Amino acid sequence: MTDSAHREMWEKLNLDLEAHDGLLAVLGQFYGDIYLSQDNRLKGAEYLDFVLSEVHGLRIKEIQDARDAGRKVIGSFCVFVPEEITLAADAVHVGLCAGAEAGTDLAEQMVPRNTCALIKSFIGFKLARLCPFIESSDMIVGETTCDGKKKAYEAFNEIAPTYVMEVPQTKTQAARELWKSEVLRYLAEVEKLTGKTITAEKLKEGIRIANGKRRALQRLTALRAADPAPISGRDALLINQISFYDDPVRFTAKINELCDELESRIADGKGVAPAGTPRLMLSGCPMAVPNWKLPYVVEGAGAVIVGEESCIGTRNSRDLVDESGETLEEMIDAITDRYMKIDCACFTPNDERLDNVTALAKDVKADGVIHYSLLFCQPYSHEALKVDKALQAEGVPMLSIETDYSMEDVEQLKTRVEAFVETLA
Amino acid sequence: MTDSAHREMWEKLNLDLEAHDGLLAVLGQFYGDIYLSQDNRLKGAEYLDFVLSEVHGLRIKEIQDARDAGRKVIGSFCVFVPEEITLAADAVHVGLCAGAEAGTDLAEQMVPRNTCALIKSFIGFKLARLCPFIESSDMIVGETTCDGKKKAYEAFNEIAPTYVMEVPQTKTQAARELWKSEVLRYLAEVEKLTGKTITAEKLKEGIRIANGKRRALQRLTALRAADPAPISGRDALLINQISFYDDPVRFTAKINELCDELESRIADGKGVAPAGTPRLMLSGCPMAVPNWKLPYVVEGAGAVIVGEESCIGTRNSRDLVDESGETLEEMIDAITDRYMKIDCACFTPNDERLDNVTALAKDVKADGVIHYSLLFCQPYSHEALKVDKALQAEGVPMLSIETDYSMEDVEQLKTRVEAFVETLA
Ligand code: SF4
Ligand code: SF4
Ligand code: SF4
Ligand code: SF4
Repeated sequence: MTDSAHREMWEKLNLDLEAHDGLLAVLGQFYGDIYLSQDNRLKGAEYLDFVLSEVHGLRIKEIQDARDAGRKVIGSFCVFVPEEITLAADAVHVGLCAGAEAGTDLAEQMVPRNTCALIKSFIGFKLARLCPFIESSDMIVGETTCDGKKKAYEAFNEIAPTYVMEVPQTKTQAARELWKSEVLRYLAEVEKLTGKTITAEKLKEGIRIANGKRRALQRLTALRAADPAPISGRDALLINQISFYDDPVRFTAKINELCDELESRIADGKGVAPAGTPRLMLSGCPMAVPNWKLPYVVEGAGAVIVGEESCIGTRNSRDLVDESGETLEEMIDAITDRYMKIDCACFTPNDERLDNVTALAKDVKADGVIHYSLLFCQPYSHEALKVDKALQAEGVPMLSIETDYSMEDVEQLKTRVEAFVETLA
Repeated sequence: MTDSAHREMWEKLNLDLEAHDGLLAVLGQFYGDIYLSQDNRLKGAEYLDFVLSEVHGLRIKEIQDARDAGRKVIGSFCVFVPEEITLAADAVHVGLCAGAEAGTDLAEQMVPRNTCALIKSFIGFKLARLCPFIESSDMIVGETTCDGKKKAYEAFNEIAPTYVMEVPQTKTQAARELWKSEVLRYLAEVEKLTGKTITAEKLKEGIRIANGKRRALQRLTALRAADPAPISGRDALLINQISFYDDPVRFTAKINELCDELESRIADGKGVAPAGTPRLMLSGCPMAVPNWKLPYVVEGAGAVIVGEESCIGTRNSRDLVDESGETLEEMIDAITDRYMKIDCACFTPNDERLDNVTALAKDVKADGVIHYSLLFCQPYSHEALKVDKALQAEGVPMLSIETDYSMEDVEQLKTRVEAFVETLA
């Protein structure tokens, strides 16, 4: 694809071309510093580099081609939106990233100043006309997970077509019923948007594809238990990030290839850092592209990241949809149950998360955990205190970090992370 | 009741006597400055002064006597907890106030720093052993209205027996079903706690009592449309505050008497401030006892407050439970429907609130509105922007204030409020 073809496409999408050039330049520089500079990188990382370099190019072209062929595009900001259903209607499901500061001043006219960076980012990206994924979306699906997003979608709906799903706040039977009715309502909405009927056969296929992606990610998680660590935390995070916007079938094949390479690395005793390097796990809020600040700081401090307990991480891949259902009703129940297992901090109580964090820390043989909350994120800030206690009880030390997308606190983060890593050595 | 009898009672409740003495002294001083200094006060305000002066004395004694007689005490922090059901089981229903800074350092060990003052206050009051209502409660009922409270109740449950109701986030039919099931679950829990069976007859009586209280408050709201304003905003707020903890039957009788007095004042053309005084309405987060900061500033700036669109205000009195139901099932449906009308900012969308704010501003003939959000309250901070737009469309000017319980910003608030009042004159 030529540069001018790219620009023509972006212009059609009504992006602010000048600001968008600026964004791509910063992103490229950032990616070079944080990713391309790594030692002992995998051959399979070529796929990652290519996808990321073409994130606003070829991938958007593919999505435009799909739209020209009559398919619809659905964007979301949360792992609660059932991808299986989107896929069953032949639509494209993209996770909208919101991992960079952009259009903050504009955003603060629509949402309060004391709002987390992720929310300001998605409002800002839209207002500043910077994100080709948002501009390509025929429908954006929000959810009632946290107060910040719940209320921000009201504002977002004024600037983009937004549909909101009600995610319950407990896991009682009545809450499950509410969620099931929301899954059915989403199915009907997707049928309406696409003009397609979701058959049992199509839904089965959607479930198979989404589960395939999750299985590849589960395989990656398991391989990271090896010492020396076969892959950097930065690359593993990038894989999880890419899982939200690349084509799911291609992604699954590529990640399985990459896992083959990891297996042979492990067999050869090779890794990205020497055996015995302090192993850290991240836990908390999702890190959307290009929010690589903390992983960069951590791996620059002489540690290696071996797991991400977050929605751009194991929270999104841990649970599969049961594949034994044959009728639509059975599959809807299976989807409902799978999503009700998500241990997001929006639930009360959410003790499963404490169990899952401690179990994952053991599985990936983490020496310590860094809990990460976005500033003003109430659900995860509250749970940081509980996760700390749960990990303490298992003898795993934890460092609690609250930050946003600005680079102002990088030096301070370095100091804190280095001090933490030293206590583990 | 003698002073030593009070102290004995407080000691039994395990209050921190010394710290509690300090609290009462500050409260008394504060009350003197803000309330007793008012001109042209009502005769009926004697009731308010008495209730407030005995809030930790006689009212607690009554509650202890009720407990000795086998009745249970249920405390809550939100108007979603159905008082009708509590009353139907012969239990005492108290609103726990959380309107002052206390035990903040202790509280910040259990909840994040970026938490609203109301939440820090209820955690702090418990940890510092300062609130005889909390200590008298056999059960405290929380709800999932906002992220801050939802997660704080998890912490609170470690220090006090806390039961949580799931309040839905939308007003769909499925959300109503969830809420109805929560109302039924609460009824069962109250029966279990009290050992009493809630009959149709008892529930009818509970509905009648709660509606009676609401009708008295509606009457007060309507009388405040008069110019000159017959009652100060401070006294009206205090009435709404007292409605949460005084005996409901006594309260209703006393407020109706006070309304009789207001009627004759109005007939005589008398008021608390001259006709033509700028009339302001407050809108937003609840102001719990003794959070009188903003009303004090506003009425000190030469305006008079003529309405409170908040949960300690019209949001709690506007809607009645339909009284035509005869069976338990019919009454549960009526209770469910009444509570689903609450226009709390926790709902999405919540356009009813915009209609209600603008209608109330007209009804009470407000010249302007002050929107009040507690710092870090996401739901109300978001809605401040929408309320502003809705009022603008009706030509009613609005001032948006974000504050907490500290006194540090009083001078700054005065400056802003005075400037706003000047634009109205
Ligand atoms: S952390 Fe919660 S709200 Fe955020 S993406 Fe995950 S499930 Fe959704
Ligand atoms: S980081 Fe926290 S506040 Fe921000 S969108 Fe996610 S859950 Fe909401
Ligand atoms: S503002 Fe909402 S959460 Fe607060 S007391 Fe009122 S209904 Fe409950
Ligand atoms: S003031 Fe806002 S944040 Fe605080 S408890 Fe009420 S709704 Fe929640």
